[in-house]
Amino acid sequence: MNVAVMGYGTVGVGVVEILRRHGDDIAQKVGQPLQVTKILVRHEYPGSPDTELFVQEFDQILRDESIQLVAEAMGGLHPAYDYIKACLEAGKSVVTANKELVAEKGAELLAIAARQGGNLLFEASVAGGIPILHTLTNCLWANRITRIAGILNGTTNFILTKMFREGMSFDRALGIAQEKGYAESDPTADVEGIDACRKICILAGLAFGCQVLPAQVPTKGISSVGPEDVQYAAGWGGAIKLLGQCSLAEDGRVWISVEPAFVPGSSQLCRIDDVYNGVAVRGDSVGEVVLYGPGAGRFPTASAMVSDLMEAARATGTLPMYRWEDKGDRTADPMTQPTACYLRLEGPGAGDKARELFGQVEELDRAGRPAEEFACITPQLPLGEILLRVEALEKAGIRLLGRMPVSPL
Amino acid sequence: MNVAVMGYGTVGVGVVEILRRHGDDIAQKVGQPLQVTKILVRHEYPGSPDTELFVQEFDQILRDESIQLVAEAMGGLHPAYDYIKACLEAGKSVVTANKELVAEKGAELLAIAARQGGNLLFEASVAGGIPILHTLTNCLWANRITRIAGILNGTTNFILTKMFREGMSFDRALGIAQEKGYAESDPTADVEGIDACRKICILAGLAFGCQVLPAQVPTKGISSVGPEDVQYAAGWGGAIKLLGQCSLAEDGRVWISVEPAFVPGSSQLCRIDDVYNGVAVRGDSVGEVVLYGPGAGRFPTASAMVSDLMEAARATGTLPMYRWEDKGDRTADPMTQPTACYLRLEGPGAGDKARELFGQVEELDRAGRPAEEFACITPQLPLGEILLRVEALEKAGIRLLGRMPVSPL
Repeated sequence: MNVAVMGYGTVGVGVVEILRRHGDDIAQKVGQPLQVTKILVRHEYPGSPDTELFVQEFDQILRDESIQLVAEAMGGLHPAYDYIKACLEAGKSVVTANKELVAEKGAELLAIAARQGGNLLFEASVAGGIPILHTLTNCLWANRITRIAGILNGTTNFILTKMFREGMSFDRALGIAQEKGYAESDPTADVEGIDACRKICILAGLAFGCQVLPAQVPTKGISSVGPEDVQYAAGWGGAIKLLGQCSLAEDGRVWISVEPAFVPGSSQLCRIDDVYNGVAVRGDSVGEVVLYGPGAGRFPTASAMVSDLMEAARATGTLPMYRWEDKGDRTADPMTQPTACYLRLEGPGAGDKARELFGQVEELDRAGRPAEEFACITPQLPLGEILLRVEALEKAGIRLLGRMPVSPL
Repeated sequence: MNVAVMGYGTVGVGVVEILRRHGDDIAQKVGQPLQVTKILVRHEYPGSPDTELFVQEFDQILRDESIQLVAEAMGGLHPAYDYIKACLEAGKSVVTANKELVAEKGAELLAIAARQGGNLLFEASVAGGIPILHTLTNCLWANRITRIAGILNGTTNFILTKMFREGMSFDRALGIAQEKGYAESDPTADVEGIDACRKICILAGLAFGCQVLPAQVPTKGISSVGPEDVQYAAGWGGAIKLLGQCSLAEDGRVWISVEPAFVPGSSQLCRIDDVYNGVAVRGDSVGEVVLYGPGAGRFPTASAMVSDLMEAARATGTLPMYRWEDKGDRTADPMTQPTACYLRLEGPGAGDKARELFGQVEELDRAGRPAEEFACITPQLPLGEILLRVEALEKAGIRLLGRMPVSPL
């Protein structure tokens, strides 16, 4: 089967390399060879071993009927959206790592794929080399998925790990991430949770069958996490992680959020450090399953894309693998979600007032805690109720210095 | 599509229940309903909701051409082997949780399935609800798998966790496991590593394409693990886990073993506790991926079996999913495997002599260590070389009290 690769950057080159390196093995597993016959490039790459496959015009791929499989590794919404849409309309199957595109346009593109008999697969778009989408949709497909929590962004996880292990400030840890090439010179998409938000939207789509757009997701990054919060989390035996979370409310709507959370030491997510990613899934039959692995990088990402190519080649003519629909805004009111919260408060009598308002709280401590600082874990309550009580604290002259949910996974 | 379930114990009932509970959802995902039309039982179950589906004779399933999918949940080699073989010969697809059967007869049964156009799937046979087989064969199929290490037996992991957390002896922890129903009254298959051995054979078969029989695997259980060893592992920052391990030697043969190992604190396997299972896989493209989840139990196991039934229904007519072949004994000489080892020694000057023989060793400590006891981690050497040096220690009057490999995953 002939394959076109669109984009020849880090990931595109990786896809071509793996298909070449494991060609025989792949042919045996799929039942036929997967042959890259065209590569869409924007400029020349002198000395590349693939020069004779380069094309500069997308139409050369679109109109080539011998190409039934297309791997998109360009990134960004445009022109990737138009290209992928055109390929799917032409009945080709498409594999992509483009999380922005899938999060924004997934329902539309999946519907086109289903109508035209192709597949749109995007394992590499969430958590790099970790096969979480496949696990959600195939391995756990005898389950009703009720909850997902994931460490979905390696850059922020690296920063939080540095803050945790070495007591660094956020700014300093970000600087090191930039030096190491883990963070871009404009780190906004990572640090503010935008990248993680796209990924949790994709996971929610597959788990719950409805499209959730990034703009519908309450999203908070890690720039407000202070060393004091990290110390309280450590003293509590846990850690702070930037989590993308989604869960099913009783009315079938979806609670979904991206924000830093207190993760207990008993959670498998607590020890997922550095640039690694991890995703915890709860299903009604299986209980809890956690997957851990590299969230980015040329070969982990390309490995997921090639697996998708193999799957698409093998599944040609069968039912579409993924499906979610645009059912309007299916998100549930975040204020109704039951959660325990970490609170860091400051002011005279903060502890007494917190206990008065919340009843039993779990008091936290850290070395060098100022006399008027008080930190605790509240009981589980609807988030709106917690915020009302925090408001009452503030009216009583207590300042709120930090608030994060406690992760239930 | 009509399904027969053979066996109506814990897992069989779970399969029937999940198929009933999620019937609509499953029909939608597979493209057709999966309908249980016969259940093979050995005796009556008065009051069961499934009474009208019960049959007592296997032939009623075998000769029913409307049944194309069979779920085997009887366990044991006989009569499961004859039944499954007959079903596959008749072109039916079979799903099983029977690790003993798959480990011993996998190559033969997979060949029959391939010849007759059916599938033999057995996700539930290894690590219960964790989708490790699917991950190995599909999600990571663009990889050359180089190493697998797994905590594959919940009973022994529970015992080791008790010894680790509460300083219990092996015997006392085993007693508690038996009280809680985690260990059978005859715990030999769990405690001596026989169960884990079957599972690592299945993983090796799928990862490396060759049959490894349980009898070919050096297998050691946990009954010789002492509280002292556990204390040294804890002081080192790690833990002792019963690991099934396999890896690819340079000549393409397979190093494979089941034994207690020192797992470093930096490994994701280190914090997999209680009855949970976890499997780490290294692939040449993806790097390292770890899966964690419930290793046993009615619904986790049944969930894996129903996922397999869905996969088999969907894949009807395509290539077989799994394949390994009987290529004779493909195991590599364990003595040639490079490994670091934990050693616990006793005798006058044990530390000096160990340093003399091994060069730089990492010395370990524990509270209450007797003056003549010495424990360390050796440098990485071929196992045979380590054993030669241990022999030299013994000739010099030093007793070996404990030895375990250090896990590289």
